[in-house]
Amino acid sequence: MTSLYTDETPKAVKEAKGLHLITEQTPNGKKVQILLEELKEAYGFQWTTSLLNLDAPNPEQNKDWYLRLNPNARIPIIIDNTQTPPFVVMESLAELIYIQETVDKDNIFGFDNKVEQSEVVQWLFFWAAGQPMQSQNNWFSRSAPEKVPFAISRFRARTLEMYGVLELRLSGRYTGAPRDFLAGKGKGKYTIADMGAWPWLRAWKRTGISEEEMAKFPHLLDWITRIAERPAVDRAISSFYDSEENLELVVSTEK
Amino acid sequence: MTSLYTDETPKAVKEAKGLHLITEQTPNGKKVQILLEELKEAYGFQWTTSLLNLDAPNPEQNKDWYLRLNPNARIPIIIDNTQTPPFVVMESLAELIYIQETVDKDNIFGFDNKVEQSEVVQWLFFWAAGQPMQSQNNWFSRSAPEKVPFAISRFRARTLEMYGVLELRLSGRYTGAPRDFLAGKGKGKYTIADMGAWPWLRAWKRTGISEEEMAKFPHLLDWITRIAERPAVDRAISSFYDSEENLELVVSTEK
Repeated sequence: MTSLYTDETPKAVKEAKGLHLITEQTPNGKKVQILLEELKEAYGFQWTTSLLNLDAPNPEQNKDWYLRLNPNARIPIIIDNTQTPPFVVMESLAELIYIQETVDKDNIFGFDNKVEQSEVVQWLFFWAAGQPMQSQNNWFSRSAPEKVPFAISRFRARTLEMYGVLELRLSGRYTGAPRDFLAGKGKGKYTIADMGAWPWLRAWKRTGISEEEMAKFPHLLDWITRIAERPAVDRAISSFYDSEENLELVVSTEK
Repeated sequence: MTSLYTDETPKAVKEAKGLHLITEQTPNGKKVQILLEELKEAYGFQWTTSLLNLDAPNPEQNKDWYLRLNPNARIPIIIDNTQTPPFVVMESLAELIYIQETVDKDNIFGFDNKVEQSEVVQWLFFWAAGQPMQSQNNWFSRSAPEKVPFAISRFRARTLEMYGVLELRLSGRYTGAPRDFLAGKGKGKYTIADMGAWPWLRAWKRTGISEEEMAKFPHLLDWITRIAERPAVDRAISSFYDSEENLELVVSTEK
């Protein structure tokens, strides 16, 4: 059995106790940061955090010490040191499920019944499949080496289509009453389903979608605002999690 | 509360008992078909099936009766008529989790502990995020109105990157021993994590990836073969689920 850690693994990671988060201030990192900050508020839950500078010249996420934690070379990951051996969870949306199931004993951010919890899981997978449409939209419209109109319009249309599905869900058009949140009976409850999608949706302005287009999704816009107003969410998107601002938490194997 | 069904909803759907599957012979449909066929073999589990012809001139999945079952207008969905009211599950990978949790009482295709089950969930989300790379690769290389070399090479590289992560996992490079399946201790166990990814991976030849390139992923190729050899998988990808072959199961509101 090869060890989880090597000589190269930063001390802050190797010597962490309890739950350790390795993240950076990206939409994917924010999902897990939000849940942890909410759990701190609800239960006084404690964890430790390391930040990676993803844009470093020789970035840590591509090095052997990190790949053995996540072969997919991406953040965020969590390491649960209460397990023997320590248990690593990759994929931000899978991390939300793992943390909610193991830490949130009163199911404040999830449900204790399989039916409503399945709604959480369904909207997480809806978002997992939809998110790449928004990120490709961003890439083709902002970063691509050439402007390819049909590619931009393809991913833009798919992004709007996704937003339309979320609007349908929140508007209650097919259920008779509008919803506050994606999962749960009645108006729904604020859960990890919302946390998983919000960090991307709040950034809709960066996608090239106009105010006029977005005005077609009033329930979605209200949902974005409703979540933005939470104090835990505010802390989760603060500079504390930014590797350029909070140098103390940055881990690196470079000399 | 608006009803789940309208006058337009096909009888085969509305009057179904137990678990009802609405599907078509696509990679996403196959995921759920595989699990159900495995459960039939393991437990004698029974369900009923309706097929949609997704390419019909006025396709059912875009009509009101279907959108109230799945606002995302996609197959497959399952309707669990043992719940009151009947409970609809969308998103193929969320369906795998729901069916496994509710039907597979002995956890033959999943785990009874949160740690190994989290591995299942992690690889399902890995695949959910990765699958669009393969489908965009297919679209840009085969269906796009123009050939855009940098877009094709982008999605081709991302597809190969994903295959490389799966190869890393199965090869056991970082754990010391090769694995037979994606999730679980030791060599792993055949679970819904494998069923969720297999229908797309088996179709690697359609992605424009060459035999030489694919030869770099020997553990992944063995995994594809290992799953293909299962009788339940063979039934799940048969013409029984093809709307052009099994007309008896096709539902339509067209006259």
